[in-house]
Amino acid sequence: MRAALALVALAMLPSIAADRIAAGDAPQFRGDELVKPEGYDRWPLVGASIGLSYAESMEGSGPGAFHRVYINPSAYEAFRRTRSFPDGTTLVLEIRESAANVSIARGGYFEGKRTAIEASVKDSRRFSSGWAYFGFENGALATASANAEGRCHACHVKHGQIDSVFVQFYPNLRQ
Amino acid sequence: MRAALALVALAMLPSIAADRIAAGDAPQFRGDELVKPEGYDRWPLVGASIGLSYAESMEGSGPGAFHRVYINPSAYEAFRRTRSFPDGTTLVLEIRESAANVSIARGGYFEGKRTAIEASVKDSRRFSSGWAYFGFENGALATASANAEGRCHACHVKHGQIDSVFVQFYPNLRQ
Repeated sequence: MRAALALVALAMLPSIAADRIAAGDAPQFRGDELVKPEGYDRWPLVGASIGLSYAESMEGSGPGAFHRVYINPSAYEAFRRTRSFPDGTTLVLEIRESAANVSIARGGYFEGKRTAIEASVKDSRRFSSGWAYFGFENGALATASANAEGRCHACHVKHGQIDSVFVQFYPNLRQ
Repeated sequence: MRAALALVALAMLPSIAADRIAAGDAPQFRGDELVKPEGYDRWPLVGASIGLSYAESMEGSGPGAFHRVYINPSAYEAFRRTRSFPDGTTLVLEIRESAANVSIARGGYFEGKRTAIEASVKDSRRFSSGWAYFGFENGALATASANAEGRCHACHVKHGQIDSVFVQFYPNLRQ
């Protein structure tokens, strides 16, 4: 019995290891603070949107802001293979003003000035709820501490299609 | 004199070589047809837009379609260093329907179903005008022949901010 349990434990090891990103694109922490992800502009985009509010109500007029959401490459490959997010998954949200009426653009909107860089990180050991959310003041902060639990997580848990992530809005994860 | 010319020719070699992408992300041709770029969803995004028309006039109502424009990684690094596009630069345009009113999205638009994959390639040896433009019927075609010169190139030459490319709409190339 004890030997059988040991074998089961051994057999589980690879899958446990595979659920945690060890690659160079794993999130880096200084103490409790997340280091601002560098080079995420070279990561896979999972979705773009405009004027989309994660809140229950919308305010204001105009088209709203552009959102881009990126994922670190290791997590992208893992999710597309397994449909689950390994520990170390990092999603970066970049927000930009919408711009119009430039050059030949007579209608529609393209991305203007960047106004925010935010990130969410999955780490089941580090965060009791699995995920934490960070804001980098449009890149001015080199590190950031996690937002209070209520600020982002409650809505992500309630509305995120898979594991608190808004997969429903991200074509590259939906497919 | 002949020796001096030879030296000049030798000195020019590295820059000539650097102006042509030799990496694995260089465009592949079968005869005159461009092979559909694979894995471009892992390439850097240069810009997203909605309802933007490259034509002089807009038609229809509603927000229009989402455009994503990707660039092959070698060309991205080269352009950000030199502000010019090497031969072998490949830009992929992915078009998606706009979607709304799903889940918690009470306003705004996110990306729906993909409707087109197109590409432009720079190759000064292959194309007399430097660039050629290809459509892959939303991915149904494995290879595509270049569109007729007048269909895309005239507008790109006239309105593209740098070397027939609409850099003015692409934050990651503007910066």
